[in-house]
Amino acid sequence: MMSYCIISYGLRQRQEPARYTASVTERNPLLRLTTRDFVCDLHVLFFCLSAYKWMHGELKGNVLLQYLAWVTYPMILVMFASLFCHLVSPQAIGSGIPELKTILRGVVLKEYLTLKAFVAKVVGLTAGLGSGMPVGKEGPFVHIASICAAVLSQFISIFSGAYEKGTHNQDLLVCACAVGVATCFAAPVGGVLFSIEVTSTYFAVRNYWRGYFAATFSAFIFRVLSVWNKDAVTITALFKTNFRMDFPFDLQELPAFAIIGISCGFLGAFFVYLNRQVVLFMRRPTALTRFLTKHRLIYPGAVTLIIATLTFPPGFGQFMAGELMPRECINSLFDNFTWTKISGLSAPPGLGRSSAWLHPHVSVFVILLLFCVMKFWMSALSTTMPIPSGAFMPVFILGAAFGRLVGEIMATLFPNGILFDGIVYRILPGGYAVIGAAAMTGAVTHTVSTAVICFELTGQISHILPMMVAVILANMVAQGLQPSLYDSIIQVKKLPYLPELALGHISKYNIFVEDIMVRKVKFLSSQSTYRELNHLLETASLKTIPLVDSKESMILLGSIERTELQAVFDWWLSPERRVYERGPSSPGQGSKRRYCASLIHRAHSQQRDTQSIQINHLKLCTLLVHLSCDSLMQIKAWEEEELDKPIDMEQIRIDPSPFQLVERTSLHKTHTLFSLLGLSHAYVTSIGKLVGVVALKEVKSYFFPLFSFMCVSLSPRLVSSRDAAWRRAAMISCCGQLVLVTGCITLRFTRLFH
Amino acid sequence: MMSYCIISYGLRQRQEPARYTASVTERNPLLRLTTRDFVCDLHVLFFCLSAYKWMHGELKGNVLLQYLAWVTYPMILVMFASLFCHLVSPQAIGSGIPELKTILRGVVLKEYLTLKAFVAKVVGLTAGLGSGMPVGKEGPFVHIASICAAVLSQFISIFSGAYEKGTHNQDLLVCACAVGVATCFAAPVGGVLFSIEVTSTYFAVRNYWRGYFAATFSAFIFRVLSVWNKDAVTITALFKTNFRMDFPFDLQELPAFAIIGISCGFLGAFFVYLNRQVVLFMRRPTALTRFLTKHRLIYPGAVTLIIATLTFPPGFGQFMAGELMPRECINSLFDNFTWTKISGLSAPPGLGRSSAWLHPHVSVFVILLLFCVMKFWMSALSTTMPIPSGAFMPVFILGAAFGRLVGEIMATLFPNGILFDGIVYRILPGGYAVIGAAAMTGAVTHTVSTAVICFELTGQISHILPMMVAVILANMVAQGLQPSLYDSIIQVKKLPYLPELALGHISKYNIFVEDIMVRKVKFLSSQSTYRELNHLLETASLKTIPLVDSKESMILLGSIERTELQAVFDWWLSPERRVYERGPSSPGQGSKRRYCASLIHRAHSQQRDTQSIQINHLKLCTLLVHLSCDSLMQIKAWEEEELDKPIDMEQIRIDPSPFQLVERTSLHKTHTLFSLLGLSHAYVTSIGKLVGVVALKEVKSYFFPLFSFMCVSLSPRLVSSRDAAWRRAAMISCCGQLVLVTGCITLRFTRLFH
Repeated sequence: MMSYCIISYGLRQRQEPARYTASVTERNPLLRLTTRDFVCDLHVLFFCLSAYKWMHGELKGNVLLQYLAWVTYPMILVMFASLFCHLVSPQAIGSGIPELKTILRGVVLKEYLTLKAFVAKVVGLTAGLGSGMPVGKEGPFVHIASICAAVLSQFISIFSGAYEKGTHNQDLLVCACAVGVATCFAAPVGGVLFSIEVTSTYFAVRNYWRGYFAATFSAFIFRVLSVWNKDAVTITALFKTNFRMDFPFDLQELPAFAIIGISCGFLGAFFVYLNRQVVLFMRRPTALTRFLTKHRLIYPGAVTLIIATLTFPPGFGQFMAGELMPRECINSLFDNFTWTKISGLSAPPGLGRSSAWLHPHVSVFVILLLFCVMKFWMSALSTTMPIPSGAFMPVFILGAAFGRLVGEIMATLFPNGILFDGIVYRILPGGYAVIGAAAMTGAVTHTVSTAVICFELTGQISHILPMMVAVILANMVAQGLQPSLYDSIIQVKKLPYLPELALGHISKYNIFVEDIMVRKVKFLSSQSTYRELNHLLETASLKTIPLVDSKESMILLGSIERTELQAVFDWWLSPERRVYERGPSSPGQGSKRRYCASLIHRAHSQQRDTQSIQINHLKLCTLLVHLSCDSLMQIKAWEEEELDKPIDMEQIRIDPSPFQLVERTSLHKTHTLFSLLGLSHAYVTSIGKLVGVVALKEVKSYFFPLFSFMCVSLSPRLVSSRDAAWRRAAMISCCGQLVLVTGCITLRFTRLFH
Repeated sequence: MMSYCIISYGLRQRQEPARYTASVTERNPLLRLTTRDFVCDLHVLFFCLSAYKWMHGELKGNVLLQYLAWVTYPMILVMFASLFCHLVSPQAIGSGIPELKTILRGVVLKEYLTLKAFVAKVVGLTAGLGSGMPVGKEGPFVHIASICAAVLSQFISIFSGAYEKGTHNQDLLVCACAVGVATCFAAPVGGVLFSIEVTSTYFAVRNYWRGYFAATFSAFIFRVLSVWNKDAVTITALFKTNFRMDFPFDLQELPAFAIIGISCGFLGAFFVYLNRQVVLFMRRPTALTRFLTKHRLIYPGAVTLIIATLTFPPGFGQFMAGELMPRECINSLFDNFTWTKISGLSAPPGLGRSSAWLHPHVSVFVILLLFCVMKFWMSALSTTMPIPSGAFMPVFILGAAFGRLVGEIMATLFPNGILFDGIVYRILPGGYAVIGAAAMTGAVTHTVSTAVICFELTGQISHILPMMVAVILANMVAQGLQPSLYDSIIQVKKLPYLPELALGHISKYNIFVEDIMVRKVKFLSSQSTYRELNHLLETASLKTIPLVDSKESMILLGSIERTELQAVFDWWLSPERRVYERGPSSPGQGSKRRYCASLIHRAHSQQRDTQSIQINHLKLCTLLVHLSCDSLMQIKAWEEEELDKPIDMEQIRIDPSPFQLVERTSLHKTHTLFSLLGLSHAYVTSIGKLVGVVALKEVKSYFFPLFSFMCVSLSPRLVSSRDAAWRRAAMISCCGQLVLVTGCITLRFTRLFH
């Protein structure tokens, strides 16, 4: 990040206006592209789901055929998605948010932001969602938007050259995350906040504005397109609710909301645990897993088969509203009816798809409970399938169902509703469902902005305070028990992410950099020869190489990028330079010789690419016949001679101020600096002498030496709440406040009635 | 920040559990205290305003008496507020947000976070708001909450010792800002976001969670208290609106919303300009301003007199709804009626205070326009009065009135509303008012989260997309023209705040630290004597002093805090140590001599406090009579002798890794590091040798040498939009999108009708 500032200042000065004009034309294509993609996606998706339901409907009468259609259709789609991703880009599998979190931390993950991954993700996601399995789309959307941003910024860097690397790319990625979430839920504010909470540790406030800009326009276009497609009459919320606004809830209902929050916290933590256990089981080297790895399509096929069988509407599905697709599920869970009251009687008008929850012989409670239990493990299982899939939506539905369950129970406990000022206000189970959805997703992702997403999804903000309380309680419980889903995946995938420090790491105040640094540093000195440089380039894989004054003094002068050194070295032994240096030889053989030398040189520099070496060798052999042997020897001799010359440091761009620490810098401080500045390494100097180097790896391995779950469970937000004492105190305080509120309400009511 | 980590690790390890338990007991008192205060405040305030209106009502019939009451009452309150603040704590004057922004940047502003300022702010704010003048409360609330946080963290540091300084205080202050805004508007989400946008440059995401926690509970208690006070039936929004939700607006109305956004951008920028011009005029040394500075109460008195006279309801006030207090204003502007339709006819039921806008002889448009124009300069003027006052609420009202004006014009242009699907939907001027309010406050404060605050204030989120678009457009225009109000105040007050870098500063990539550093550094070497230390402490005002190996080598070993050195020095010459060193002298004179020496020593160390020196001298003289002259000489000689001894570095706590830069660190990088890490100074080393020091002052003075407005106009958020080309392109793109939308809608309508 820092070196970029120095190296590219020359470029920047000249290209500023071009760059910033470009940044608009680029952000807008970004939005347009992503939203258009998404909308196309949604259309295909809509078609898929319609076809699925149509097929199911047409075959009524023949249960066996119906079952076959119900099961085969998702199996084909899921297996196609899995196969497509496997063949095109395996990086497209999964959510994408954990990888982005790592990329935004400053680590380069190759192949994650490529066009191939984009294609695989879009196709795989459409197929996966179209199958009706409980998989989400917010993570893949974030990944897709980020790929758009990365590809576009690469595309623009061809013209301007300034976007090649550095913080600007990161800024663009942060905005892309916001766009992804915003388009997924048509929630610009919630999208920005959720992406901040999920991906960043330190957030530059300037990106806030940019995120809003991008997210608003993407959400806007997303909704405007739905108006044009006549899906909606005007721009409204995605899952619009219609609760009464004059009296959304009474204070008496607060304890129930708090219970939802706390329960969702436990459930969310258990969800993360279950999901990880499934993944870990699949990674354990047993005969079964080896078999499944070999036959890749069996696992997703089997999972889909089990889930589809269980949700088959004429079968077990009738006891868990199995016929409802995810979107219908949410719409019906958020509706304005009280199901316990209509069960048994004839369905009131406007009930619509909610009738799936009402079974003539089974209580609504049983159906809701069955739905929660079955969907719980189904969601945890289906998000481990090797297809592009997020977990937000399945968890959202789970939370909504749980909230609805509590709401229906409340409606049964208080069948006459709440009497206030002579008017009876009935309890709204739909409101409980909204709160449950927000609390559960908050618990699983360890965020609070799910509440904001919920407001934007439902278009109603009247439940803001109980929802915030529930989400905070859920977060408290979940953060104490498990890492967030994304941290859990980071951990399972062993991505190079540096977690936040916990209280348990306080002892790191009196451990210093000298204790963990790598003392054997590979370096260049100002007297180094090209031979040494060659050796260094061949043996070391460092991205930047330190430059010292001399081997004896070891005084650090700066650092040089590997690419820079490679270019200098390549030029030094290039045929062009040789010809220039030696002057033209005999005219006839000159061009051939030069070509031959370039082949040798190319083979030399592309050592690892065996195929090209083979081709070059072939060409070389045919050429060599025409060349005199001593001429080749001459070239070799010249190269040998040149290799022993010292490097001309004047011509190399040196970063004069690489990040330095001293031996006595505490490990805690090192961690903070690495996190804050997004460093990948830092040199350790003692009175100006280079004595060692510390890379992210060392810091991470020191802080988190064991593959223990408790380490990553320390999410950035609740640093202070990790301490059990704190958590207990906070819980007690919250509960105390609630008890206080409840007590006062009871008191008021007693007064009212006497 | 960094040195804190190292120095206090000893303390921390022992006190972790205590500290974190404390942090809860502390955060909760914080909320409780602040909310309780605010609620008390509001009660006093409510009483003030009721008394005001009662007085005005009782005197009906006698216009002169009525006028006197109308004018005298606010004058007394404002002058009392001004006098009280002047006497108790002048730091309480104004908003408080600019100062907090500077404090959160890492600069210590003395006296801003004291109990005195708290008392002055609370009393002054209550009186100021009670006067009915157009002054806001969000800035003062933020200041009050921050003082609570600072005082409580000091209080707790007595027990734990760990809160003395460092990032934890800052974290607490960030949360306090959120609490302040959240309690002011009962808007937890908007509060957190607004405080982030306004105060931070880089935001630690862990504080996000904490901010939500604190803000939710404070907003919760604030609203629950209003239920208990029977002000509200249940927890609802502060300025609840009741717009229809099924069809909040049509796409055809979007251009009008965009016009509101752009106009509000211009108006907001002009507001900031006007406000600054008034302040600058008052600071210019003319005869008038000198007179006003001498007689402090004349300026606020005169301003109040002018404003009160113009708003006098039976006088000019009838043409600008002068009788409405701020809160009534907002409620009436957000109402569900269309004023142009009821003007002339008898008032419909439920119109309430909105009738103030309807004049029998004057059009609603004229009244709204007059209101906008008059309130515009009144707000700009009244926020410059020397009382605690924010500008958010006045600007909010202004924006609401402007939006309402546009809404009423739209309702006149489309008197039959919008026909859609056979149903005629009337235009909602109240919705326009909400959007105008959000856009105007967004433009003045350069934030987008005002939109979120608006949702929470009104309890309706249906206008989210047009509102976001309007706020973003307003921000774009305003950020291009003027700094935000808070940056403008920072600039006028010349607070030590380091603004973000602009594109114009790109040339700073090839200027290095060596060009701006202070080369003459005051330092201690490991051979320094106590005499040198004394000289250093007397001459230098540095907070930390660098320690070098020797004067010749100048190799930096670390830095030492001034307080540490002062303590060591004081102890070295202390009578206790002398007595201990020399052993007890003759028993009779011993105690007297010791006392005398302690007096000399005290006089010596308290050199600047002349009064105490005089007292000590008096005591000394009386004592000296009893003491033999040579004994005093002995002490002096001992002290002289001790002063020449070298300092024992073993006993001093040294920070072994102060922040270091090298000479060739670019100025751009320096700026980034200073901003990101909140540094106040950094040492410049060359091969380990201390060669200079760079303080915030140097960096700031280099980047922003002239007192030019364009410099601070570069707010952190729109770094990329500063470029005129970018802005133009963005504007064109937005307008283009709008034109596109409008065109498509027209097309659709044409199709519908043919």
